[in-house]
Amino acid sequence: MTVEAMPSPVRLKAVAAKGQPDPSPALEQLYRGFESELLVPLWTEIGDLMPQNPRSKAMPHLWRWDRLVELASEAGRIVPVGRGGERRAIALANPGLGGRPFATPTLWAAIQYLMPDENAPEHRHTQHAFRFVVEGEGVWTVVNGDPVRMSRGDFLPQAGWNWHAHHNAASAPMAWIDGLDIPFSYYTESQFFEFGRERIGTVEMTTPEYSRSERLWGHPGLRPLSQPDAPSATPLLAYRWVDTDRALADQLALEEEGHAATLSPGHAAVRFTNPSNGRDVLPTIRTEMHRIKRGASTLTQREVGSSVYQVFDGTGSVTVGDKQWAVQRGDMFVVPSWAPFGVKASDASNLDLFRFGDAPIFEALHAYRVQTDR
Amino acid sequence: MTVEAMPSPVRLKAVAAKGQPDPSPALEQLYRGFESELLVPLWTEIGDLMPQNPRSKAMPHLWRWDRLVELASEAGRIVPVGRGGERRAIALANPGLGGRPFATPTLWAAIQYLMPDENAPEHRHTQHAFRFVVEGEGVWTVVNGDPVRMSRGDFLPQAGWNWHAHHNAASAPMAWIDGLDIPFSYYTESQFFEFGRERIGTVEMTTPEYSRSERLWGHPGLRPLSQPDAPSATPLLAYRWVDTDRALADQLALEEEGHAATLSPGHAAVRFTNPSNGRDVLPTIRTEMHRIKRGASTLTQREVGSSVYQVFDGTGSVTVGDKQWAVQRGDMFVVPSWAPFGVKASDASNLDLFRFGDAPIFEALHAYRVQTDR
Amino acid sequence: MTVEAMPSPVRLKAVAAKGQPDPSPALEQLYRGFESELLVPLWTEIGDLMPQNPRSKAMPHLWRWDRLVELASEAGRIVPVGRGGERRAIALANPGLGGRPFATPTLWAAIQYLMPDENAPEHRHTQHAFRFVVEGEGVWTVVNGDPVRMSRGDFLPQAGWNWHAHHNAASAPMAWIDGLDIPFSYYTESQFFEFGRERIGTVEMTTPEYSRSERLWGHPGLRPLSQPDAPSATPLLAYRWVDTDRALADQLALEEEGHAATLSPGHAAVRFTNPSNGRDVLPTIRTEMHRIKRGASTLTQREVGSSVYQVFDGTGSVTVGDKQWAVQRGDMFVVPSWAPFGVKASDASNLDLFRFGDAPIFEALHAYRVQTDR
Amino acid sequence: MTVEAMPSPVRLKAVAAKGQPDPSPALEQLYRGFESELLVPLWTEIGDLMPQNPRSKAMPHLWRWDRLVELASEAGRIVPVGRGGERRAIALANPGLGGRPFATPTLWAAIQYLMPDENAPEHRHTQHAFRFVVEGEGVWTVVNGDPVRMSRGDFLPQAGWNWHAHHNAASAPMAWIDGLDIPFSYYTESQFFEFGRERIGTVEMTTPEYSRSERLWGHPGLRPLSQPDAPSATPLLAYRWVDTDRALADQLALEEEGHAATLSPGHAAVRFTNPSNGRDVLPTIRTEMHRIKRGASTLTQREVGSSVYQVFDGTGSVTVGDKQWAVQRGDMFVVPSWAPFGVKASDASNLDLFRFGDAPIFEALHAYRVQTDR
Repeated sequence: MTVEAMPSPVRLKAVAAKGQPDPSPALEQLYRGFESELLVPLWTEIGDLMPQNPRSKAMPHLWRWDRLVELASEAGRIVPVGRGGERRAIALANPGLGGRPFATPTLWAAIQYLMPDENAPEHRHTQHAFRFVVEGEGVWTVVNGDPVRMSRGDFLPQAGWNWHAHHNAASAPMAWIDGLDIPFSYYTESQFFEFGRERIGTVEMTTPEYSRSERLWGHPGLRPLSQPDAPSATPLLAYRWVDTDRALADQLALEEEGHAATLSPGHAAVRFTNPSNGRDVLPTIRTEMHRIKRGASTLTQREVGSSVYQVFDGTGSVTVGDKQWAVQRGDMFVVPSWAPFGVKASDASNLDLFRFGDAPIFEALHAYRVQTDR
Repeated sequence: MTVEAMPSPVRLKAVAAKGQPDPSPALEQLYRGFESELLVPLWTEIGDLMPQNPRSKAMPHLWRWDRLVELASEAGRIVPVGRGGERRAIALANPGLGGRPFATPTLWAAIQYLMPDENAPEHRHTQHAFRFVVEGEGVWTVVNGDPVRMSRGDFLPQAGWNWHAHHNAASAPMAWIDGLDIPFSYYTESQFFEFGRERIGTVEMTTPEYSRSERLWGHPGLRPLSQPDAPSATPLLAYRWVDTDRALADQLALEEEGHAATLSPGHAAVRFTNPSNGRDVLPTIRTEMHRIKRGASTLTQREVGSSVYQVFDGTGSVTVGDKQWAVQRGDMFVVPSWAPFGVKASDASNLDLFRFGDAPIFEALHAYRVQTDR
Repeated sequence: MTVEAMPSPVRLKAVAAKGQPDPSPALEQLYRGFESELLVPLWTEIGDLMPQNPRSKAMPHLWRWDRLVELASEAGRIVPVGRGGERRAIALANPGLGGRPFATPTLWAAIQYLMPDENAPEHRHTQHAFRFVVEGEGVWTVVNGDPVRMSRGDFLPQAGWNWHAHHNAASAPMAWIDGLDIPFSYYTESQFFEFGRERIGTVEMTTPEYSRSERLWGHPGLRPLSQPDAPSATPLLAYRWVDTDRALADQLALEEEGHAATLSPGHAAVRFTNPSNGRDVLPTIRTEMHRIKRGASTLTQREVGSSVYQVFDGTGSVTVGDKQWAVQRGDMFVVPSWAPFGVKASDASNLDLFRFGDAPIFEALHAYRVQTDR
Repeated sequence: MTVEAMPSPVRLKAVAAKGQPDPSPALEQLYRGFESELLVPLWTEIGDLMPQNPRSKAMPHLWRWDRLVELASEAGRIVPVGRGGERRAIALANPGLGGRPFATPTLWAAIQYLMPDENAPEHRHTQHAFRFVVEGEGVWTVVNGDPVRMSRGDFLPQAGWNWHAHHNAASAPMAWIDGLDIPFSYYTESQFFEFGRERIGTVEMTTPEYSRSERLWGHPGLRPLSQPDAPSATPLLAYRWVDTDRALADQLALEEEGHAATLSPGHAAVRFTNPSNGRDVLPTIRTEMHRIKRGASTLTQREVGSSVYQVFDGTGSVTVGDKQWAVQRGDMFVVPSWAPFGVKASDASNLDLFRFGDAPIFEALHAYRVQTDR
């Protein structure tokens, strides 16, 4: 095959515009030369490629939980789970990203749904993942043979390249959300995948209250000496709601007692961290839980990088760029890179928000920025 | 604006295929629901999104230096340099990437061209950049007021967010290549840009043999105590050919004397590093110079991440995936992620190859892999 | 003052020995010259200075808890606590270290004793410290105004340069142990000290169940977003026995279920870590809790660096070099650098051992070694 | 052996003093109890152990180079070099450190002397070392079989646990200085030592202009790809005077041109660094070269940790604490921890000072402080 044999994907047009050369036959001829040699000049592209600050293709958007569950439930009825499709996961497709299953340019967010007695087959992939449970229980995720219970409020990180499967041991269907860095690894072309067993063993089908990982790593500030290395992703497979809830409550209580403990008045927040190094649970994904006290507001901020939020509890109002929504339990929304973002809890209740974002990528590459609008 | 008001970018089609649910009216109805709610199921996408190893959209491709220079020279005649277009830079557009000025999914590679007495105006941006000079001299890059000479074989890194301009002090035009992480920062939406002065000052138009950065940081293993911090990108603005050449020659000489010094027999290589921390010169871009001894071959390897090469000197044969090219001075080619890559120097001369790639991104995120084909 | 005016501390003697020059009048004259110029040749010293492996000046030694408490209690009766003496702390003086209050060349270990209603005045120092409570309760340590309860089994790290005081709010005296890096900072001459308030404020005299630090930092894997930095010493001021006990019990239970969780059969162990970075709680001191199952033994190991142990519970037998002791609750003993060390729990009960050592110093300087005797 | 059987090294005396309990028979009896149990109370020791800032046992002291050479030369005549004594090295013994061969509490500094055709036998040890050459040439240090030339102004680091030997290939004796962390590893009891070959091989007796290490690692900012790891101590075995001299000259020239390049006016300085990570050449020893312009003075500073200086060239005046000396080529002096230190170059010449110190220990442990006296 020669490149000449196929039409060049490059298409250039001389236009009269600031910063660009005046259209002329010579320029047109030059552009034809560029096209045939697969070249593109900076001067026609610079406005799009090098803006003064990030201008996201992704759009602020809200998905309603009831509609997600309704469609996932319908999929539960008519779409089987098994090898090949691997998971009954239905992804948010940001309206600015061309119909791809990308919530943001770097993040995948999906609702996953499992019927009673169903099993999602074992596989592993380098993409980092997590589960977050906004409601329900009864499903276990089995990670390298370690069954991990999933209950409301639990956060379950799933570092890349670990074998994992799901099984629903309950009599009711269960839905939860999956977050992954699929778009990032897809775009940067760095992903690996392997199929595992069709069905995990009987022992792994047990339903223990706590996973082995929690029994080893889930004690605050205590490291098992039998695990000397600091893995780049967390060895702790579940962060339980009882702990998260207490941590947030403690921050608000400390604030009321007059001590510095919150991000801003009425805004408590914790980050899920790898206990072996204190860093983000996953090398590419930051995950946090926020609690905004009834009636309180967060500061309005812009950050490099994108995030997806799910309302865990309560009601309130969310502003992202020029969009504003009233939100309630389960609703999910996207905050694109550098979009101003703020939240207000309703006067009726605290507002609990689960968040995941791609900030670790930018921090690792020294490209992170944040700006608070005053 | 409501999402319902605009047509959904999501388009789903039930097809009979392994791992996918059997087509049925119910499935079609489910898909219409997904479309209207901006949802995409994993089971239709998994093959593309989660391959067993990276399958690059980018294609192996070669650009001939004589054609690049010819078109750049023509641009020199008819396209002015100035504010708005900023640079007379003409980028390689990988044929697999849809006509975008992206050599690979993460890397920008361009030939830049400056006529005698021309000045490219000052600006700064968070994208990391470098210049590499395959031939010619006479241009100075002025970085934060420090004029840096550009001569054949010199490598000039340009860390993000530093002010810079170019001026050609010679009586002949000069061409060189620019490398940047524009596609990466474009896709991840993390870029900032500012215009500087239209014209740099008279003092900065001087043409010193060595930049101030080299006089501070260019002495081997010696750190100026007046510069206590370790910047995340290199403070050294030029790596001179005389040093690079000697380092490569020393490796081959040591090998002949019986000592371990090369990557594989006849394959010498150095990496340009930040003297303040020994790491890559730029947080997102790795840069190296390779010398393959006449008649010798490199090992064939696959790596996560993509690279662009330019032949600095000599002739040889390059194999990337299913492509093979005879190459000579100035020729540029792309090695996509996980494509098998090997080089053979001709029997007539050593082959010197300049390389830049995105490996630091994957190393920082613990996602780097390399595999040597035996 | 001239050096010549005072007698030289250097004393050299020519002796007939392997590796040393033959005694002669010329050699004696040379040695007189060395003495007058304050010089010492390597050849007379090398055997002591550069042994084939560490030969500790410190000796293995055991202190019985009942005697420690008895003498501390007597001190409680006749020695007041106050400014100047600062603390009623009585330090272990290793018999090999010349009567200095040094348990090992780097570590200070003391029993501290506080009478009902007594207050130890506020101060701060760069030496890192901790408290460990083998029995009793009723004392609060106030760190930067944050009162921290001390109860049996609790471990309270105290990073350098934080203000701290103690007050006994109970009706009984209380004893606990203090560990510090006093000898290390004394020998390396790197210590600073400041007096604080004579008496802490009324608010700080309260006796809350949990310190503010625990409410902020004591939730497993959860980091308060209001505390963005990773301090080099732990921000968590108490590690409670209920957590430590459960972590050790979980390891033994996992072992019984057939999973890798212990250091060796029947030997569970946790390290107290800084939740902000997963590293040792203090930059110079490692602290751990070990549980050896009834009837089980540890491996015999030698390590670079020294440790002090206290029996927290149970009975057993300890071997350090050529010493062996039967131990019980509260007993303290020293393991010098590179001394072979092993423990056996009695058949009557598990043996719980608290340990602190100086390993972080050697790890930070890339000088740590460990060897298991088979 | 029982401890009771030997007299306790602890000796306590009740004295009337601020912060100490009033003498009484009860107190005396308590102290007898402490002595018999090997205990020492804090209240009698705190003034010495916990001063408000470091009060060094080491004293400022100066050794004259002509006397050092004279005595070393005499030792060359009457003391053979060989296995057992290992080296003809004569160490500075700080008058405050009890006659031990310790220049400071952590640092060993010695003059080493080798006669024509002499060989110092091969060995290795974990203590980190370096050589610095104030005059002469003709000796090669052979490190792991790599012969490294030693000439005036050269700095040769010698990381722990590398085999090394010396041979004098010239017709004249040669003297140089050795620096090691012997006192630090002695006190912390962390040292290992092994004998090597009695005599190195013929090939290693060659006298190449440059060592293999320099040919691999001595090119500025260029890392050999065949050496992927970053060793904790430098892989570069020689830092040549020509480079050091130029670096210092460049700083003073840049200062004259109006650019920030010096530590303070007229005070140029470089640190010798590990090119693989930009850090100090040795994990425990910092090494630097300073040039004070004729007539200029340094700032007066106090630092945690101690240093030894040698005058490489020029004349000037040195102030350490309450001592002041006029110094010239080869003179060596000690700056104890936290002693105020300043230097003035004579009006006749620049003053070049080689310095080594223990700052990396304190930086690694987060205990470093510096204070500039204004």
